Amino acid sequence: MSPFTGSTPPISSWQHLRVAVDETGVATVTLARPDKLNALTFGAYADLRDLLAQLSRERSVRALVLAGEGRGFCSGGDVDEIIGATLAMDTAQLLDFNRMTGQVVRAVRECPFPVIAAVHGVAAGAGAVLALAADFRVADPSARFAFLFTRVGLSGGDMGAAYLLPRVVGLGHATRLLMLGDQVRAPEAERIGLISQLTDEGGADAAAAELARRLADGPALAYAQTKALLTAELDMPLAASVELDASTQALLMTGEDYAEFHAAFSAKRSPKWQGR
Amino acid sequence: MSPFTGSTPPISSWQHLRVAVDETGVATVTLARPDKLNALTFGAYADLRDLLAQLSRERSVRALVLAGEGRGFCSGGDVDEIIGATLAMDTAQLLDFNRMTGQVVRAVRECPFPVIAAVHGVAAGAGAVLALAADFRVADPSARFAFLFTRVGLSGGDMGAAYLLPRVVGLGHATRLLMLGDQVRAPEAERIGLISQLTDEGGADAAAAELARRLADGPALAYAQTKALLTAELDMPLAASVELDASTQALLMTGEDYAEFHAAFSAKRSPKWQGR
Amino acid sequence: MSPFTGSTPPISSWQHLRVAVDETGVATVTLARPDKLNALTFGAYADLRDLLAQLSRERSVRALVLAGEGRGFCSGGDVDEIIGATLAMDTAQLLDFNRMTGQVVRAVRECPFPVIAAVHGVAAGAGAVLALAADFRVADPSARFAFLFTRVGLSGGDMGAAYLLPRVVGLGHATRLLMLGDQVRAPEAERIGLISQLTDEGGADAAAAELARRLADGPALAYAQTKALLTAELDMPLAASVELDASTQALLMTGEDYAEFHAAFSAKRSPKWQGR
Repeated sequence: MSPFTGSTPPISSWQHLRVAVDETGVATVTLARPDKLNALTFGAYADLRDLLAQLSRERSVRALVLAGEGRGFCSGGDVDEIIGATLAMDTAQLLDFNRMTGQVVRAVRECPFPVIAAVHGVAAGAGAVLALAADFRVADPSARFAFLFTRVGLSGGDMGAAYLLPRVVGLGHATRLLMLGDQVRAPEAERIGLISQLTDEGGADAAAAELARRLADGPALAYAQTKALLTAELDMPLAASVELDASTQALLMTGEDYAEFHAAFSAKRSPKWQGR
Repeated sequence: MSPFTGSTPPISSWQHLRVAVDETGVATVTLARPDKLNALTFGAYADLRDLLAQLSRERSVRALVLAGEGRGFCSGGDVDEIIGATLAMDTAQLLDFNRMTGQVVRAVRECPFPVIAAVHGVAAGAGAVLALAADFRVADPSARFAFLFTRVGLSGGDMGAAYLLPRVVGLGHATRLLMLGDQVRAPEAERIGLISQLTDEGGADAAAAELARRLADGPALAYAQTKALLTAELDMPLAASVELDASTQALLMTGEDYAEFHAAFSAKRSPKWQGR
Repeated sequence: MSPFTGSTPPISSWQHLRVAVDETGVATVTLARPDKLNALTFGAYADLRDLLAQLSRERSVRALVLAGEGRGFCSGGDVDEIIGATLAMDTAQLLDFNRMTGQVVRAVRECPFPVIAAVHGVAAGAGAVLALAADFRVADPSARFAFLFTRVGLSGGDMGAAYLLPRVVGLGHATRLLMLGDQVRAPEAERIGLISQLTDEGGADAAAAELARRLADGPALAYAQTKALLTAELDMPLAASVELDASTQALLMTGEDYAEFHAAFSAKRSPKWQGR
């Protein structure tokens, strides 16, 4: 357990998500409302926000898989439980709701471990943005992404999508996808850089688990810092980025894994990574 | 008419452009000097600047198509009427000219409606940047883009091209295109993300009109805000972008189209979009 | 020689690089430790930093080719001479080393002439980042890039890579490449925009020389400003970029090459570029 623990007790029972953290540092978070194509509810957003904050504090997780049970990954905000409910909200509540969903995306980008979205079938609306915010999108040929916010009368810039998508696929594709909300099937998604790894049919969950295994067994602190720098340097100029890289690298050069690499290389054996 | 109208009377006669605004909110602006491949003149730049400012004030337009008459889209600044004329200008005039062309690009990026460039044949120099600044580039197989500024001894960074092109096609392709000024034909332009929609030969104008129709008939305020966020968030960090998305979405959740979506969905009918 | 010369004498003998500057403004810098796959040493980094600074002051160079002798381009930092040595360094020395490598990347991005990496075989670690920082990557089918920093226990964000790579290939590909350190072969590198020009087998050096020739013989000041704007505008908002483009273009419109273009065009002859 992290020494930086205050009065907040850890939650072990998440009502709106299925959460498994194994002893080797792999967390698997499953959206598990398969009868609703894993449509998100207020509770699911809140649990994602709180779970990622807790895992970021605990430091026991080295890689996280976000998956969906059943026929697809996630169909986005539930039409009844979210769209219907927001129609009755006042201004302050509307802001609170939309800030919460944005906090989930920020948590995915800022948590100190890589997040792998395992995508099959539909990733729509908020589901598409969750996958977009992940570090890796491991998808099978059934995957289809739809940033369909304008189709419900809302802005395509939801939960940071107007920030993230141009930085992943370029402004031209991002404009088309966010403005029109059309479905992007796996071949196009791979072509434009929206998919990190395309698997065989039905293979996304297993490939995501394998990637998480590799990340958790490897130099996990190096991976975590790589993620932190990628996130930070999107918002930084070149000179400052070069300085941040230098201080980060100087720090990691004092770490155990760097010394272990050199010892292993010299002894012609594989490194035994500690992740620190 | 917008209530935010001052003393400036609207212009209805544009001497250097052909302008048509229909009753359903689709504007079509045609560069119409086909004998000169629609080469731009001082007057054409000034009219584009003033027209976009007027349409942005009036709020009667929901989508705008920018097209070229004749054999191509636009061959860029006229060699005689612009290059020749600028050679006789003093420093202040040179700045004024180059600021005006940049203002056109800013107006395209910042006007509160999507702009669709319908490209066939040549889109060269300033013509290529006008297309680049548009939200959509609908092009047919004859389209060829050439950012040929260095070929006249000028910087490839003209009218914001050194800002926009790397954000559309990535820094590597953008460096090659802006530095060398080589022609990019439709297949490559599509591959690197410079074309939004590739049509059949001769089909760009019709496809652009169809897209404009769809945008004008749809949730136009949602489209306008999507564009505004895409433009703004290129220049914003993640945390601020997420906050801007949240406040925008909260605002649109109080709008008519969002309520209409839910009513239509519940009644199993198609939404009747108001665009507000 | 530039009038802006102080007391520092120019260095003509570089011990850790092979440097050739011809009379027409083409510099060729060769990493020449072929028995070590051109692994970089402290001296090679320092010489790259100092050479680029000197060439930037002298203004006799209009294009620079960076190539590797033997079986590959550059295998990165030498395992013994760098990794081994850094394990014995204190905190201040580690920072100094990592700042020096970052200064090389900044020098490549900020020097007032285009840099062409001629890549064949391995471009790994710091070698991959040197190629990434170049304006052009001319590569043959044997080229393979590997940002393998995490494989030695370090951050994938080394020497500005976490800044540059997302801006060249998008955040999705960049995350995969920097986090995992996997090898990217030429076909994938071309597909994702990491290669500027793919040549025939063994043709990278000749094609890079040809491109350098073209750049040095052309409107070199226009090329230099294009590079400067591309570098600067990655870190600038749209409005400021448009203003920078305007003032740059106004300046170049007072230059010799712009007048020469118009004179040549009017006389139906080819321009004789002065590069100023």
